[in-house]
Amino acid sequence: MAENEHTPPLGMTAEQFRRAGHDLIDWIAGYLEHVEEYGVLSPVEPGQVRRAVERPLPAEGEAWPALWSDFQQHIIPGITHWQSPNFFAYFPANASYPAILGELLSAGLGVNGMLWSCSPAVTELETFVLDWLVELLALPAHFRGAGVIQDTASSASLCALLCGREQALDWRGNTLGLADQAAPLTAYTSDQAHSSIEKAAMIAGIGRENVRLVPSNAVGAMKPDELQRLISQDRSAGRQPCFISATMGTTSSLAMDPLRTIGRIAAEENIWFHVDGAMAGTALACPEFRDIGDGLELADSFCVNPHKWMLTNFDLDAFYVRQPQRLTRTLSILPEYLRAAQSDEVVNYRDWHIPLGRRFRALKLWFVIRTFGVEGIRRHIREHVRLAGEFARWVCEDDRFELAAPPSLNLVCFRLKAGDGPSEALLHALNRSGRIHLTHTRLSGGYALRFCIGQPRTGEPHVRAAWTLIAEAAREVLED
Amino acid sequence: MAENEHTPPLGMTAEQFRRAGHDLIDWIAGYLEHVEEYGVLSPVEPGQVRRAVERPLPAEGEAWPALWSDFQQHIIPGITHWQSPNFFAYFPANASYPAILGELLSAGLGVNGMLWSCSPAVTELETFVLDWLVELLALPAHFRGAGVIQDTASSASLCALLCGREQALDWRGNTLGLADQAAPLTAYTSDQAHSSIEKAAMIAGIGRENVRLVPSNAVGAMKPDELQRLISQDRSAGRQPCFISATMGTTSSLAMDPLRTIGRIAAEENIWFHVDGAMAGTALACPEFRDIGDGLELADSFCVNPHKWMLTNFDLDAFYVRQPQRLTRTLSILPEYLRAAQSDEVVNYRDWHIPLGRRFRALKLWFVIRTFGVEGIRRHIREHVRLAGEFARWVCEDDRFELAAPPSLNLVCFRLKAGDGPSEALLHALNRSGRIHLTHTRLSGGYALRFCIGQPRTGEPHVRAAWTLIAEAAREVLED
Repeated sequence: MAENEHTPPLGMTAEQFRRAGHDLIDWIAGYLEHVEEYGVLSPVEPGQVRRAVERPLPAEGEAWPALWSDFQQHIIPGITHWQSPNFFAYFPANASYPAILGELLSAGLGVNGMLWSCSPAVTELETFVLDWLVELLALPAHFRGAGVIQDTASSASLCALLCGREQALDWRGNTLGLADQAAPLTAYTSDQAHSSIEKAAMIAGIGRENVRLVPSNAVGAMKPDELQRLISQDRSAGRQPCFISATMGTTSSLAMDPLRTIGRIAAEENIWFHVDGAMAGTALACPEFRDIGDGLELADSFCVNPHKWMLTNFDLDAFYVRQPQRLTRTLSILPEYLRAAQSDEVVNYRDWHIPLGRRFRALKLWFVIRTFGVEGIRRHIREHVRLAGEFARWVCEDDRFELAAPPSLNLVCFRLKAGDGPSEALLHALNRSGRIHLTHTRLSGGYALRFCIGQPRTGEPHVRAAWTLIAEAAREVLED
Repeated sequence: MAENEHTPPLGMTAEQFRRAGHDLIDWIAGYLEHVEEYGVLSPVEPGQVRRAVERPLPAEGEAWPALWSDFQQHIIPGITHWQSPNFFAYFPANASYPAILGELLSAGLGVNGMLWSCSPAVTELETFVLDWLVELLALPAHFRGAGVIQDTASSASLCALLCGREQALDWRGNTLGLADQAAPLTAYTSDQAHSSIEKAAMIAGIGRENVRLVPSNAVGAMKPDELQRLISQDRSAGRQPCFISATMGTTSSLAMDPLRTIGRIAAEENIWFHVDGAMAGTALACPEFRDIGDGLELADSFCVNPHKWMLTNFDLDAFYVRQPQRLTRTLSILPEYLRAAQSDEVVNYRDWHIPLGRRFRALKLWFVIRTFGVEGIRRHIREHVRLAGEFARWVCEDDRFELAAPPSLNLVCFRLKAGDGPSEALLHALNRSGRIHLTHTRLSGGYALRFCIGQPRTGEPHVRAAWTLIAEAAREVLED
């Protein structure tokens, strides 16, 4: 491609693409097989990657080998390896081979599925696969035919909150605005809930000060009596409660809000009831963990991220709304008569989320569910839960440590009994080592390390090695 | 994989992935080289794809060949081929080989770039590549270091409108909500603007009835005097104007709003000024088309979609905000002191958009700009504009046809002089043929066909053949 006059329309010839593509596929296979050989947390300093890639805007095109070499030399050092079996930070970001193939195919097709007619397969496969997910996760039957793929749980929760806002205002807020409302709207979630609920309230014009962070109990679950009290208090003060978000697995400690009790309050108070099951929702695939979903049939909306723990590349959040016309009425810019005329025939997902355009994301989830099957997905979940149980046992058996919260599914929160300082020092030592990556939280005011097991290639040897490393690093920290 | 007990952790072995991946790469190369052999518009009936893929949820996993065969047999017929050089509908959805490789690599790495530390390369490459784009498109210098990748222009416009809302309220709306505002907020865009502006106002709690659709002139550009009149009228009525969105290339006819005049009004009135250059913004790469950007330096925010016309796979919208702390102050859920402490060192893009998680999307734009270079991108744009000019000439030379709007860059709107009925019949005949795909609009109340040239492989032969087909189909329609 030295003579750029002849750069092919797609940037390279089909033959060059084949060669580069095969190399890339091979590299990805090698990367994922050997990813544990990398330091987990990128060690670069701020500005280091930028300085490495900085160069003048190229007037003429360059050939692939230069790009590929720069990627390996300058980008890879700036990558924190989420796919490493030694990544125990945040939450898992599951990739799997069939999901990568689905993403590749979607990129190759290059279609935009904003309307049914823009590519009927994009819409129909999506509805179908999300119905499969209803069955796989034993979700309430009224979520059948009522699912849509969103990018993330943040966006799904925003859509849910908007539905709650509009239902409370009888769909006058999206037409007339909120300034006309005599009563300020209020929303409810626990003090352990994900920050996206507050962010959604900021975006939706409700305001974060009108989000009531309902106190949670000792294990981090929302206290329903406090919820009831806050709702009553707001009503007495002339405010209008419109939205409750319960968390199926909090970010800090994977605590489970009591959905049934909260759902009953929501129903009695006629408030939209959303359930955020971003990571833990995947555990509903296993019958033995389905108690976490008790009461889910009371939810107006629910979201779960197969891109976290269900072997499906980021991004793919599955969002369900009971009576989805409440969602389309909230977001659609089409007049009512048009919506009615269309609704029987086809679904136009453009009216089910914030963006207009949409990728063909159902493909990767379809490939994942078919490749693993129900039992394969269950084995994946069960092994992580089993390993988290083992890890928690080792923590309890070591006098220097204590659990910071009851272990929940695949997450163990723990700390050094010596206190916040040593616990924090321990975390930094572990992350600096590059051998494992953990993150932290605060629970009941105290510093806690989070050990989250969820990468597909994480097995018992990785968890054992991690514990050995932790125990060893603790010795050094406590000696200092 | 018949014995599912042994399904590998990533769904297949590395060797199986390599084989399937190579096959897929080859298939994509073949698909894109031969995509014009497919009928452009999918001919399936509603429900047809779903019926074809419908089957019970699989208990055990299946091997790749079954999935691959189902994809080809059941999904492909439901695809409308956006990558066909005979796709002239909506807007282009450019795919190119380096962009596909970037998307593949991003899927293989499987990282989430919500915070700088989650993978510094994701953040730093993004800022760097968006700075390149500032230079490539000759954007105002104050957009340097002030860009972020969003999924779509709809999301970018929502973020811009939220900034306008909060600036007008001195950042009290996101904390206290909008119900406390004495004066209802109003927003302004033209009657030709994209529907996403109204949708954003619905989401943000401003309400679509508080969006003033400023009348446009005969060619579809906003009338600034009408804008000024509406703003004054709203102020007199005690309302608070907060947001103006001008369009650099309207959806219907690619009309250009007079940015400089609108920008001056916005500055005088102290109203946030956003410019939506979703498709046409890419033309700024060519010095000879830069008159469309005259006045852009007055904009508070700007968005352009490389995923439309800049050879970069969907999704990738580039969004710029002058003084981006106004954006983070609008969306961040962090307390101020924390934000200040972080801001000098690194950028945390989580506070620059609606979702929290984010894919590594800068990679594909980096690959595209380096593969094509400035001149390669310019040639791509120029050829489409040249072809649109040719097409417009043929329309004018045929007595049966007329232009429905002045040709603009790569878009020609035209109709049959015989009126709406025959024009509509013509569109349906063309789309039914499968040989080309066009969409329609209404301009000055009349039906118009849109002929939008923007796919990388669309060349003169395709445009000539399309015109021949159109002229022929017109004969049949007019004979009926």
